[in-house]
Amino acid sequence: MTKALLEVFPNPHPKRDFVIEHIAEEFTSVCPKTGHPDFGRVVLRYVADKSCVELKSLKLYYQSFRNKGIFYEDVTNRLLEDLVAATKPRWMVLRTEWTGRGGIRSNIEASYERKKR
Amino acid sequence: MTKALLEVFPNPHPKRDFVIEHIAEEFTSVCPKTGHPDFGRVVLRYVADKSCVELKSLKLYYQSFRNKGIFYEDVTNRLLEDLVAATKPRWMVLRTEWTGRGGIRSNIEASYERKKR
Amino acid sequence: MTKALLEVFPNPHPKRDFVIEHIAEEFTSVCPKTGHPDFGRVVLRYVADKSCVELKSLKLYYQSFRNKGIFYEDVTNRLLEDLVAATKPRWMVLRTEWTGRGGIRSNIEASYERKKR
Amino acid sequence: MTKALLEVFPNPHPKRDFVIEHIAEEFTSVCPKTGHPDFGRVVLRYVADKSCVELKSLKLYYQSFRNKGIFYEDVTNRLLEDLVAATKPRWMVLRTEWTGRGGIRSNIEASYERKKR
Amino acid sequence: MTKALLEVFPNPHPKRDFVIEHIAEEFTSVCPKTGHPDFGRVVLRYVADKSCVELKSLKLYYQSFRNKGIFYEDVTNRLLEDLVAATKPRWMVLRTEWTGRGGIRSNIEASYERKKR
Amino acid sequence: MTKALLEVFPNPHPKRDFVIEHIAEEFTSVCPKTGHPDFGRVVLRYVADKSCVELKSLKLYYQSFRNKGIFYEDVTNRLLEDLVAATKPRWMVLRTEWTGRGGIRSNIEASYERKKR
Amino acid sequence: MTKALLEVFPNPHPKRDFVIEHIAEEFTSVCPKTGHPDFGRVVLRYVADKSCVELKSLKLYYQSFRNKGIFYEDVTNRLLEDLVAATKPRWMVLRTEWTGRGGIRSNIEASYERKKR
Amino acid sequence: MTKALLEVFPNPHPKRDFVIEHIAEEFTSVCPKTGHPDFGRVVLRYVADKSCVELKSLKLYYQSFRNKGIFYEDVTNRLLEDLVAATKPRWMVLRTEWTGRGGIRSNIEASYERKKR
Amino acid sequence: MTKALLEVFPNPHPKRDFVIEHIAEEFTSVCPKTGHPDFGRVVLRYVADKSCVELKSLKLYYQSFRNKGIFYEDVTNRLLEDLVAATKPRWMVLRTEWTGRGGIRSNIEASYERKKR
Amino acid sequence: MTKALLEVFPNPHPKRDFVIEHIAEEFTSVCPKTGHPDFGRVVLRYVADKSCVELKSLKLYYQSFRNKGIFYEDVTNRLLEDLVAATKPRWMVLRTEWTGRGGIRSNIEASYERKKR
Repeated sequence: MTKALLEVFPNPHPKRDFVIEHIAEEFTSVCPKTGHPDFGRVVLRYVADKSCVELKSLKLYYQSFRNKGIFYEDVTNRLLEDLVAATKPRWMVLRTEWTGRGGIRSNIEASYERKKR
Repeated sequence: MTKALLEVFPNPHPKRDFVIEHIAEEFTSVCPKTGHPDFGRVVLRYVADKSCVELKSLKLYYQSFRNKGIFYEDVTNRLLEDLVAATKPRWMVLRTEWTGRGGIRSNIEASYERKKR
Repeated sequence: MTKALLEVFPNPHPKRDFVIEHIAEEFTSVCPKTGHPDFGRVVLRYVADKSCVELKSLKLYYQSFRNKGIFYEDVTNRLLEDLVAATKPRWMVLRTEWTGRGGIRSNIEASYERKKR
Repeated sequence: MTKALLEVFPNPHPKRDFVIEHIAEEFTSVCPKTGHPDFGRVVLRYVADKSCVELKSLKLYYQSFRNKGIFYEDVTNRLLEDLVAATKPRWMVLRTEWTGRGGIRSNIEASYERKKR
Repeated sequence: MTKALLEVFPNPHPKRDFVIEHIAEEFTSVCPKTGHPDFGRVVLRYVADKSCVELKSLKLYYQSFRNKGIFYEDVTNRLLEDLVAATKPRWMVLRTEWTGRGGIRSNIEASYERKKR
Repeated sequence: MTKALLEVFPNPHPKRDFVIEHIAEEFTSVCPKTGHPDFGRVVLRYVADKSCVELKSLKLYYQSFRNKGIFYEDVTNRLLEDLVAATKPRWMVLRTEWTGRGGIRSNIEASYERKKR
Repeated sequence: MTKALLEVFPNPHPKRDFVIEHIAEEFTSVCPKTGHPDFGRVVLRYVADKSCVELKSLKLYYQSFRNKGIFYEDVTNRLLEDLVAATKPRWMVLRTEWTGRGGIRSNIEASYERKKR
Repeated sequence: MTKALLEVFPNPHPKRDFVIEHIAEEFTSVCPKTGHPDFGRVVLRYVADKSCVELKSLKLYYQSFRNKGIFYEDVTNRLLEDLVAATKPRWMVLRTEWTGRGGIRSNIEASYERKKR
Repeated sequence: MTKALLEVFPNPHPKRDFVIEHIAEEFTSVCPKTGHPDFGRVVLRYVADKSCVELKSLKLYYQSFRNKGIFYEDVTNRLLEDLVAATKPRWMVLRTEWTGRGGIRSNIEASYERKKR
Repeated sequence: MTKALLEVFPNPHPKRDFVIEHIAEEFTSVCPKTGHPDFGRVVLRYVADKSCVELKSLKLYYQSFRNKGIFYEDVTNRLLEDLVAATKPRWMVLRTEWTGRGGIRSNIEASYERKKR
């Protein structure tokens, strides 16, 4: 969960608004209360401005949460914030979908939109 | 059905409106008229304000209805009210879907929205 | 088809508008013209005011049509009217879906909305 | 194809607008050009005014087309017109779906709405 | 449940062993213990000898169980016996599949084979 | 139902045993008891000897049953016999599958195998 | 691809706007560049004015493209234009869906609407 | 339908029995009786000996039937024989599946096995 | 990735706005960071003005990316730009859908609309 | 297509016969006749003896065929032989399933079984 892992590369086509979507099927972190592993899917959707997130670094960044104790709600917002900080996008949505624990499965969705100046 | 079982933790990102969804597939209570067990699914969807419901406590709270005689309509609203009282959310929907008794299956849906001040 | 069979219980949460749905998969009555049995599904959806229909009584009420000769169109409206009379709801829809006779299957849908005063 | 076969019965609940749907899966007539049989499905949907079409008579009416040579377009409108004449509905749609001949399958849809006075 | 309702007609091709299957999707009888209706499917499969069961009479025979209080196991064997008595087949299987009551659904299968002389 | 309609053409490859299957989805005849139309599927499977049945003639032969009153069991065997007489096959199976009448659907299967000399 | 093949018959119900749809699953023409056959589906949807296209002539007209070398884009518009010329409809859509060549599959859609006078 | 179109290449692994399957979804020929096009699928399965059929030549060979009038039974055996002659396989099955004409669809299957010496 | 490979032919029906869609299921390029192959689907949708892209050249153009190291975001926009330059369309959308690497799959969508003069 | 790329590791449980299956969805090579790319799926199934194939090396080995011109039949057997040589299994099946070229799709299956001594 070190956001320093996130690398970006210059948006090759910054003049155009276009939508980028990355779907990670195998996210895992740890429940801070029980110590049990959580498994989920992370859907990232954004319109880049000057930078795009590099995929391998995104994978490593996601993997850095593997042994981190963190609530669903927290990790969802944390991912959004780190990715906003790294890419400074025009618009971004981050959704997590968790396979469940104790018969309860959960989905969390947070979004960011750059303020118009 | 002791709402004291519900625990919350501080919303780690209270400045942002984001949607939290918890789906419990294995809720069970008892029909107050026949004494037979009822089985259903509970879908909770909300936007937290200062507090989030903790998942393990939610599971224990749901389990506390196991031997409680209570109508579908009542339990749906009771769940909503206890969860509203515990988390003081900005918005919440609670839907129960029951597998049925005597050839009839039922769905009940109730919602809460905080009054704007 | 005695509406006296319908029992209600006080809406445990009358201050809130919430939607109740009961789906009966095994309704049967008799064709008044041929004397042959009809088979169908009854979908009831309503917003209760002061009263909710009790499920076991609903089942018995539905079963009371078992040997009644009655047209699809009539039974659909009759069910709606009896249920409106018994529960005095804010809003109600009743839909019947029949498996068919002589190669023709039928669906009938009627609704009620309380007049605003 | 004798519309005299159509029988109606008084709409048991004429004060309410409600939707009646009859789906006949096994309609058959004859192609007026080749003499080969056509097979299709007839979907009838209407809001009755004073009269409802009786189902057994509808079946016999549909069966009366069995050896009639008639184009898809014609039979669709003919069915609509006979059923409008017999039931004088508030609104009616008639759709035919044909299984096809020579690698081409066809669907025809016609509708009627009573003029407001 | 009057087996006198069953009519047969002469097997039009008695020299050949061929398999006849009739599947009734809408069988209903009554639970002798609770008085509630049971709903099920009846699959009949047989090789006729001198007689075949006539379909309309089979339908009326099945309908005659509509208000009869009888256990699943009993009705399955009763149907087999009445149909064996009426048609004197070379071989017959009768299977009932019930949609269930109280969360349990049931299937019963009984068969008959004529003794070789 | 005139078997004279059946035309054959010489098996172009009589030295080889190969399987021919023709599936007619839109067979219709008339119930001899009620006068109502029956609808079904006819599956023909055979190994030709010197003759193959010509497809257009097969279609016309099937169509000749359109207004014939005949039981399921009879038509199944009649089709088999006419087709055996016309093509003198090495082996043939004929299966009819009927969409049903009065809530009962039926399947009939008969077969023929040439006696070894 | 001779449009002279198209025959029409008088719209039997010209006073009513109704929708006619013909779906041909087995259209084939030839790629003008490679000489290889193309396979596709042609969906025609229109509201007739004074004339309807006759189905057998439509089949023969479609078959006339069998050995014609023509691009997807061209054949789609050509079909539309010939059918507009033959039937003078109030509104028409023609869509072709091609199974593909070289790993690329294509869909083309063109439409016509009569100018209001 | 010129078998000279078939090209083979040396089986690169003749010491091993292995199964080769080629499925052509878009075979078309012409009905010799009506002149209308037939459409079908050709499934070829074989164990090569010294030669394998080259795919592009197989495609062209299949395409050579495009305007040939030929019965289903004949084309199935003809394909088998040409392919046996061209590749001299250890074992081969050829199955054609036709989309149908006049409401009847057909499947033909023929096979070859090399005689043991 | 040589755009010179793209060939166009004159739009045979330039007076009409009609939609052309080409779906390539088997696009492949190389990840510029890891050197591993990427696999994806390319959906092109456009309204032509004076020129249409020729399909075989489109296939070869797509194949020219086979050994090119290029990011998802870049290739998506590059394809759009080359196709806009080659065909000068009225409107175009290009969407790539990638099967994923390291548990993450991605979709990118970019579009172009000609400025109104 | 350098088999030297294949690495193995010691079977951790050599005393037991157990089945290992690796399914590669994105295999690609080049048609030696046309130069166009082929796309397929490779299913490997084997019972290891002393060695198991290492997955990353298997991926690189498969990728080494990317620009190799080779027939379906050849590549299937080549893969089998290289994998047999590298792992010396008790039993192995290798199946390739190709998405097709020119309307024909192909499946090839070869197997190996160790001779008993």
